[in-house]
Amino acid sequence: MTAYSHIEQAQILIEALPYIQKYNGKTVVIKYGGNAMINEELANAVMSDIILLSLVGIRVVLVHGGGPDINEMLDKTGKESRFVDGLRCTDEETMDIVQMVLCGRVNKNLVGNINRKGGNAIGLCGLDGGTIKAKKYDAPNGNDYGLVGEITSIDPALIQNAIENHYIPVVSSVAQGVDAEVSYNINADTAASKLAVALNAEKLILLTDVKGVLRDPKDDSSLISVIHPEDVPVLMEEGVISGGMIPKIDCCVQAIRGGVRRTHILDGRVPHSILIELFSHKGIGTMIR
Amino acid sequence: MTAYSHIEQAQILIEALPYIQKYNGKTVVIKYGGNAMINEELANAVMSDIILLSLVGIRVVLVHGGGPDINEMLDKTGKESRFVDGLRCTDEETMDIVQMVLCGRVNKNLVGNINRKGGNAIGLCGLDGGTIKAKKYDAPNGNDYGLVGEITSIDPALIQNAIENHYIPVVSSVAQGVDAEVSYNINADTAASKLAVALNAEKLILLTDVKGVLRDPKDDSSLISVIHPEDVPVLMEEGVISGGMIPKIDCCVQAIRGGVRRTHILDGRVPHSILIELFSHKGIGTMIR
Amino acid sequence: MTAYSHIEQAQILIEALPYIQKYNGKTVVIKYGGNAMINEELANAVMSDIILLSLVGIRVVLVHGGGPDINEMLDKTGKESRFVDGLRCTDEETMDIVQMVLCGRVNKNLVGNINRKGGNAIGLCGLDGGTIKAKKYDAPNGNDYGLVGEITSIDPALIQNAIENHYIPVVSSVAQGVDAEVSYNINADTAASKLAVALNAEKLILLTDVKGVLRDPKDDSSLISVIHPEDVPVLMEEGVISGGMIPKIDCCVQAIRGGVRRTHILDGRVPHSILIELFSHKGIGTMIR
Amino acid sequence: MTAYSHIEQAQILIEALPYIQKYNGKTVVIKYGGNAMINEELANAVMSDIILLSLVGIRVVLVHGGGPDINEMLDKTGKESRFVDGLRCTDEETMDIVQMVLCGRVNKNLVGNINRKGGNAIGLCGLDGGTIKAKKYDAPNGNDYGLVGEITSIDPALIQNAIENHYIPVVSSVAQGVDAEVSYNINADTAASKLAVALNAEKLILLTDVKGVLRDPKDDSSLISVIHPEDVPVLMEEGVISGGMIPKIDCCVQAIRGGVRRTHILDGRVPHSILIELFSHKGIGTMIR
Amino acid sequence: MTAYSHIEQAQILIEALPYIQKYNGKTVVIKYGGNAMINEELANAVMSDIILLSLVGIRVVLVHGGGPDINEMLDKTGKESRFVDGLRCTDEETMDIVQMVLCGRVNKNLVGNINRKGGNAIGLCGLDGGTIKAKKYDAPNGNDYGLVGEITSIDPALIQNAIENHYIPVVSSVAQGVDAEVSYNINADTAASKLAVALNAEKLILLTDVKGVLRDPKDDSSLISVIHPEDVPVLMEEGVISGGMIPKIDCCVQAIRGGVRRTHILDGRVPHSILIELFSHKGIGTMIR
Amino acid sequence: MTAYSHIEQAQILIEALPYIQKYNGKTVVIKYGGNAMINEELANAVMSDIILLSLVGIRVVLVHGGGPDINEMLDKTGKESRFVDGLRCTDEETMDIVQMVLCGRVNKNLVGNINRKGGNAIGLCGLDGGTIKAKKYDAPNGNDYGLVGEITSIDPALIQNAIENHYIPVVSSVAQGVDAEVSYNINADTAASKLAVALNAEKLILLTDVKGVLRDPKDDSSLISVIHPEDVPVLMEEGVISGGMIPKIDCCVQAIRGGVRRTHILDGRVPHSILIELFSHKGIGTMIR
Repeated sequence: MTAYSHIEQAQILIEALPYIQKYNGKTVVIKYGGNAMINEELANAVMSDIILLSLVGIRVVLVHGGGPDINEMLDKTGKESRFVDGLRCTDEETMDIVQMVLCGRVNKNLVGNINRKGGNAIGLCGLDGGTIKAKKYDAPNGNDYGLVGEITSIDPALIQNAIENHYIPVVSSVAQGVDAEVSYNINADTAASKLAVALNAEKLILLTDVKGVLRDPKDDSSLISVIHPEDVPVLMEEGVISGGMIPKIDCCVQAIRGGVRRTHILDGRVPHSILIELFSHKGIGTMIR
Repeated sequence: MTAYSHIEQAQILIEALPYIQKYNGKTVVIKYGGNAMINEELANAVMSDIILLSLVGIRVVLVHGGGPDINEMLDKTGKESRFVDGLRCTDEETMDIVQMVLCGRVNKNLVGNINRKGGNAIGLCGLDGGTIKAKKYDAPNGNDYGLVGEITSIDPALIQNAIENHYIPVVSSVAQGVDAEVSYNINADTAASKLAVALNAEKLILLTDVKGVLRDPKDDSSLISVIHPEDVPVLMEEGVISGGMIPKIDCCVQAIRGGVRRTHILDGRVPHSILIELFSHKGIGTMIR
Repeated sequence: MTAYSHIEQAQILIEALPYIQKYNGKTVVIKYGGNAMINEELANAVMSDIILLSLVGIRVVLVHGGGPDINEMLDKTGKESRFVDGLRCTDEETMDIVQMVLCGRVNKNLVGNINRKGGNAIGLCGLDGGTIKAKKYDAPNGNDYGLVGEITSIDPALIQNAIENHYIPVVSSVAQGVDAEVSYNINADTAASKLAVALNAEKLILLTDVKGVLRDPKDDSSLISVIHPEDVPVLMEEGVISGGMIPKIDCCVQAIRGGVRRTHILDGRVPHSILIELFSHKGIGTMIR
Repeated sequence: MTAYSHIEQAQILIEALPYIQKYNGKTVVIKYGGNAMINEELANAVMSDIILLSLVGIRVVLVHGGGPDINEMLDKTGKESRFVDGLRCTDEETMDIVQMVLCGRVNKNLVGNINRKGGNAIGLCGLDGGTIKAKKYDAPNGNDYGLVGEITSIDPALIQNAIENHYIPVVSSVAQGVDAEVSYNINADTAASKLAVALNAEKLILLTDVKGVLRDPKDDSSLISVIHPEDVPVLMEEGVISGGMIPKIDCCVQAIRGGVRRTHILDGRVPHSILIELFSHKGIGTMIR
Repeated sequence: MTAYSHIEQAQILIEALPYIQKYNGKTVVIKYGGNAMINEELANAVMSDIILLSLVGIRVVLVHGGGPDINEMLDKTGKESRFVDGLRCTDEETMDIVQMVLCGRVNKNLVGNINRKGGNAIGLCGLDGGTIKAKKYDAPNGNDYGLVGEITSIDPALIQNAIENHYIPVVSSVAQGVDAEVSYNINADTAASKLAVALNAEKLILLTDVKGVLRDPKDDSSLISVIHPEDVPVLMEEGVISGGMIPKIDCCVQAIRGGVRRTHILDGRVPHSILIELFSHKGIGTMIR
Repeated sequence: MTAYSHIEQAQILIEALPYIQKYNGKTVVIKYGGNAMINEELANAVMSDIILLSLVGIRVVLVHGGGPDINEMLDKTGKESRFVDGLRCTDEETMDIVQMVLCGRVNKNLVGNINRKGGNAIGLCGLDGGTIKAKKYDAPNGNDYGLVGEITSIDPALIQNAIENHYIPVVSSVAQGVDAEVSYNINADTAASKLAVALNAEKLILLTDVKGVLRDPKDDSSLISVIHPEDVPVLMEEGVISGGMIPKIDCCVQAIRGGVRRTHILDGRVPHSILIELFSHKGIGTMIR
């Protein structure tokens, strides 16, 4: 805090005022993952951002996955990680590890971090209060991915109750089976998108490891700032939206169709990218709305 | 906002986090007056500060006087402003002007300004809901100052109700007579101090036109940062606290004795001095606690 | 209380019972002005009426203007009162006086009087809580009346909150500009009418200095007791409704169209005319419904 | 309503204002019985009084006995009414009649009357919600009066709930046995007194068929307006308080000792005596406080 | 509890679990009468059932008549019981007895019994809080049955309030007249049916002295378990539904049409038939739905 | 359900009534572990018991450890389980596994099981909402057990909020460090005991793999049914309380001293032992009170 005078600092706080007014009382669902989760400094910045949002009256919900941690634990137990078409083949033993790592390590560590910084978080997963229900993923290609689930329903009551009691809910992407007595491994982006709809959120933010949607993947300056759902088919045809970006954009489009006001593909590698997106004029990343 | 990068701005917001956490849910009573009220730019900065405090969950109450406006209106109506020992001799005609100017012009203009900036203020005075009751000031020197009153009781119910409904109460220093069917002109510093006690406030801030209490009035660097109530008699004997500072310090001491945690003599000539005091490590002005 | 035996008094109280039952829990908006405001005895009778209504469970809102007080203060400051077509030409300096007199003198004096009599009033204006918003009056004749406003919206939240907390709201006819950073002088009859609609009131009462609508202005016995909105055009054509009565009747008709159950042109020169209208069989004045 | 002008009527309503203000929100327990219950006109006056009190914000509880109705029904069924020392000898068959008449006829007829006049009453007895519990009366003289009970405890929760939901509770003097599976016949004055204490009432009113306590029983003008508990022993020694007045005065003294502010022996033969007592300067009957 | 081991007992409690889950928070209206009311052991079983239902979160409302008690009291007072077409000819004197017996004896005795067993009941009738309103029964055959009423409206507010405050409402079949200042004797089955509709009940249970609807009245094994409203006309034509069963079935059909989920004709002669119906797989009696 | 008639079943339900009444609205904290957790049938019985308790209005909190699962996972990852004096030596890597297994596998599997059976559970640990805070265990013998913690404070707000919203809280014995940025492994019996005190519980139940405290460990019939805290020192001296029973009895004594009404050492190997203890006359196991 040496670089700025007190008056400059105050001035900057005041410049955030219109944004704080704009989002006060609104719900923002953030899918947390990637570098922002692995890199400790970036992770700390996200935690601070979330606590600040919560204090200025924004109702924040954090949804997370945890691929690297899962892989590491599978390794440790001598269990092979197998992916087909980007989906983890999840046998019972793998699912046990997935649930343990997501709900027991990643989730509770996030909760501990937020609370140590003065926030007030609680760690939940789709099993708690029957919040997220799922059935076995019925892949169009006929493959069997094991205990990979697709969400059949969301009951937002528990999370709403937590928000209204001024807790920050941190939610693992594990769901309760409706077609079998199992837990399902679900995609965290999809879970965040469907939760945003169920909570009638103002914003869905997906933290990623890219700048956003780039017209030319090699040129960072070719960032597309705004995409409307109706633009997506053309952009896909042109190959601008491709690969792993396709399901992310789809999550955003589904959220918009479900009533979420704005959705964002943000670069989680930029410290405080959430705060910058919410509290500055220009915004960063790609907005789909 | 050109001078700072987005990341720098975010960084500064984050640096305010511990202070926001500290004051969240607490009540801060601010006596507003002096240059911060006359100078338009300073006034705008105060209004922004107040709205920001309110948005981050601080319960702000603004108490104001309005000497210059009163003098101007007395002039306009050809009525002489008469002061004896720093107290305005307030005959019935003067009191009528005082009440009109404070409750009708200053108070409602403040409310209008705050609301135009996106805040949610309501303008009240001691008459409303019987909030402040007073009797004729019984001066030790036997002088008759007319309708100058001394506060006999505060009923904080109306102001608390306003705060809980997320309004910013703006309060004029006019009280309802208990010994006669009149309004009384009361000292705004005293009103703020007694309101702070009645509201069980965390902080009382008196905005003034000086840097604080200076050991050497000619040397700004001789600012005394902290004064404890027990230090006051010696400082008065030494002449460090003298003149108009005496009653201000007394208001602070009374507030502290009534349970207010901290009180501040702040320099209203510094833009955003309220924000700087609340949201930075060092604080400015003189704290009495 | 010497003239009546206790039993007679009790009898009269009991005769009011069905009327009290009828209006219990209902909202009544009263536009207060004219002789009932100038004459002290009449004013005291109105204050008592209002407190009684409030105690028997009627939700009373008092709306007031204050022409004579404004004129007096303009005189005092050497500023000319200029009226064109019955509208006060309101330059900035005049508006400053209007706001001061209405919100600072008339409003707060009413509040003080009610509270001294044991009521529980709070004084508000259109600026407080953004209750009444207005834009510059766009006169059909093209005249520029300065800061005379026409209401663009009413937010009844603050007044409803006050009523539910058992306060009697007293409201000055000053509005917050939406087209400029100014306060506007608005017509108090219109403000009362629009507030009655926004509050879903049972009754709107306009206190005037006439008996009501008279078929023959020289003959008090020619009072028309009830007028239906559809009768108004004929009565205007016949000249029965004319001059200053036209906008008052229009306020009533607008209120009826907005869902107010009954509206009344009452003679404020009769002591307790409000109580008589509400609590006796016959009613007085002219009812528009 | 022909005898008084509207203005006179309004004037009388206004004269009641300070009394309404005084009792607003306070609880008044009325023991109803005697002529005020038998005479239809008097009964109607009591019902109107109670509804009016309720509408002006007084929390009224009506407690009743019903000796004459019980006697009549005992007669009809050929069962002898037997009294010893003023207490009804209550065998099981008699108790059955007592309960039926009090809870089924008197109570529900009162409820029906109040509700037909626009009030909102509900009929309860000591059995409901376990409100009044009693054990067999252990007479000092060793007599066995059968199912005559003495109150062991009051649970005011049900009656408070009724009051808070704006019902007028009408309570029969029948209690639930704690020492046997029976209902007990309890004294209605005592029940009213103990309920007043349990409800932290402002006032207990016992409606009787006498003017109050008279110094000279043959001289109505010898009414004693105020008796303090400490005066009672002397007045009993002097024979001024004697016979049936002794237990009534005792009920009042017990109520005062239990925290009830004022208690009254009122003449139920005067129409609207409740209203007169509450809403006029002088009061009538004898006040014990 | 000697016959079963603790583990067997626990097992049986656990077997009730899915039924408790099913009805938790739902409203069940029970018309109580017949042998289940006369036989002490059966009556005790019903009281226990009701308390248990109430404790496991079912909102129970008990509606009762009381023919035998009424006849007994009429006998005792030498008044003839006269029935025409199954309806009691109810002159004023009879109605007085009906009301006394139902509201004063049967109702309050039920309340006393439930409360002595640890329940929390309150006794109400149609007069209380204006819950049930009726007019004179206009018989199709032109007969005059005196004060026999037909229900014109139900206001469930008082009963809902009682349920929400965890009381068990016990309701007598007496209604307030809307066409005359009288109480009316109403049919308890009809009252239960209409209350069930007004309370949006899950179930209506009519306790009777038969096994249910039997295809062959002489063969208990010919019980019809389920009847749909559309089956009723044929069953009546066939004479399977006949005599006193016709109005009972009609009450059920009306309840179903009004939104009640299921209605039951239960055999009140079987101890705990209510519990068996609610908490076992098979159910007993005839269900109409 | 073939072995018992419906009437017998109903009878058994009714016999549970007084116990249900007794515990309605009370809080019961259950430490779950041992065979009752490992054996699937026993586990299912516990889940059913808990859901039933919850449905009959008992506020249940489940606290669990999970030693066998932890050992299994340590094995799987090739990490040695090391115990000294009965305490797990918990280095960072072990703590990571402990937290994952307890919060991610055991806890969430319990939640899933309860919810699949129709209950409404949520899984929490001491980190969530800062519920359980601990510092490094300072062993009297000077040994360093690593991340084994002792509880420094309990904040019951989150668990109370869950209970009041009708969730069944399932709590893992993991606490947030106050002396370091770590999670601590805490003893589940102690956590249950301290939670019971903080929640002002009626009962604390420790499920174990023994019958209770036996005077002669080889003779099951020597079970001591009740132990008072003051008996403990003698029983320890006599060796009746010894080994692993010592800390369990200490947890019970601490709970009793903290205001918990009754504590129980129950045999978790008996199916439905919780239900039997709560809902039968005799109780089983050893009660400390």
